[in-house]
Amino acid sequence: MEIPKGKLIAIGGNEDKGTEPEPNFNQKNNLNFFGLQILSRIVHEIGGHDSYIEVITSASSIPDEVGQNYLDAFGKLGCTNVRVMSIRNREDAQKPEILERIKNCNGVMFSGGNQLRLSSIFGGTEFLRILQHRYLHEDFTIAGTSAGAMAMSNTMIYQGSSSEALFKGEVKITTGLALIRDVIIDSHFVTRGRFGRLTQAVAANPSCIGIGLGEDTGVLIAEGRYLEAVGSGLVIIIDGHHIRHSNIADLKEGSPISIENLVVHVMSKGNSYDLSTRKFSAEVTSA
Amino acid sequence: MEIPKGKLIAIGGNEDKGTEPEPNFNQKNNLNFFGLQILSRIVHEIGGHDSYIEVITSASSIPDEVGQNYLDAFGKLGCTNVRVMSIRNREDAQKPEILERIKNCNGVMFSGGNQLRLSSIFGGTEFLRILQHRYLHEDFTIAGTSAGAMAMSNTMIYQGSSSEALFKGEVKITTGLALIRDVIIDSHFVTRGRFGRLTQAVAANPSCIGIGLGEDTGVLIAEGRYLEAVGSGLVIIIDGHHIRHSNIADLKEGSPISIENLVVHVMSKGNSYDLSTRKFSAEVTSA
Repeated sequence: MEIPKGKLIAIGGNEDKGTEPEPNFNQKNNLNFFGLQILSRIVHEIGGHDSYIEVITSASSIPDEVGQNYLDAFGKLGCTNVRVMSIRNREDAQKPEILERIKNCNGVMFSGGNQLRLSSIFGGTEFLRILQHRYLHEDFTIAGTSAGAMAMSNTMIYQGSSSEALFKGEVKITTGLALIRDVIIDSHFVTRGRFGRLTQAVAANPSCIGIGLGEDTGVLIAEGRYLEAVGSGLVIIIDGHHIRHSNIADLKEGSPISIENLVVHVMSKGNSYDLSTRKFSAEVTSA
Repeated sequence: MEIPKGKLIAIGGNEDKGTEPEPNFNQKNNLNFFGLQILSRIVHEIGGHDSYIEVITSASSIPDEVGQNYLDAFGKLGCTNVRVMSIRNREDAQKPEILERIKNCNGVMFSGGNQLRLSSIFGGTEFLRILQHRYLHEDFTIAGTSAGAMAMSNTMIYQGSSSEALFKGEVKITTGLALIRDVIIDSHFVTRGRFGRLTQAVAANPSCIGIGLGEDTGVLIAEGRYLEAVGSGLVIIIDGHHIRHSNIADLKEGSPISIENLVVHVMSKGNSYDLSTRKFSAEVTSA
């Protein structure tokens, strides 16, 4: 498979869904639960303060507020060339002006909200084709928080309560933006107790590495394989390749699941993980 | 080490702490979140309906209500010889009448509440010595739910929020009733998202196997080693013996933890695990 020249930055955070009003969003400095330290790293990876950054708020049910909040936050970091794309449906995503902008920017930032909005608005569009192409062939950075992080992979969780997540059928999976394959990304991981949810997703898709992102925590993914933990919290890696027994195929919906031999790593800032070799390292590794 | 002739039954459930009023306790048929199916198994293991069972409510802040609730529940199962021990402090635990009762009963049931009450009331007492001796040398069953389950092991979690549990120092450990060694038992595991809490406890005590019990779910432990999952939910086993890197020793309090290579099993009813060989089995194994 081709080695992407671009980078992904997936950040955990508030993944308010559907028409929920994202009640905590307007807290001061609150960018769906990640701080300026991570935003600063995003700016650095995109290319610095002068870079042309597009904020994509399509996942959100309150895109104007969210967009303004990102403009303010990037502004605090001295960024002078940040714009918000107003894309609410598939028609918007196909406008020539929008396509021109996605071709010309230096990087994008997907906000939180509902990841199904992202997959249903962008799936199969020219917009997504350009995004994928630029990520593969250019030094182009795609950042996303929460829903914007969860939608990056091919296999995407879109529903599943934490408390019931180890009962079969409770975790719903669909296809995301497919910027990266063979991973499943979950957000808001530590606070909401989503170990069971990601575990079920990994057991049902054992070729995928589960990446659980805490709040104000994320991973930078270089060359489509090298993960570096960033931010103040934890990244949980769930590797299902060593699963021996799993009853997920034979089980009735709603029955409890049994799984033998998941390998789990707990990463904090500066730790890294290679998706290809499936090796954890306490230091930052890269090409 | 000596092979215990007795059995332990550790059940997950509500672990209301300190002086909290256990608000959900008085729901109909609610025994700190486990059902009559498990209670029926407890009765069976203790020796049937005619067995003399002592209910120990010392962990609870509302021992009378809790005791009555257990009497009602055991009564529904046709048990005719169940008594509640009123032990509120170390003096109570040393009364000759109480010691006589613990020598004569066929099995005991520890209620939920605060596990620190159990360790501080019973630690180092003649009462506990009798309990340990009967468990080792007789076909004697000790059941416990929630706090009563968590207190069974030598290494006992007594505090630690779920959301902060992967930051060093957030999980507090002390010595439990030491009926079993080299395990750490956590309760209410799936609903409250306690993966991080048990993970930190295991990383700091890697000789211990972590046993995370869901609500209405438990393990029957025979010969001090054979675990059988019982009830309607899940038991999560966390094995820290394969941990390669862990920064827990060098870390400042409050900093995030990193851990490489935890082995995790998800067990449901009928699955078993051998603490000595650290092997999962989809079937019930025993001596």
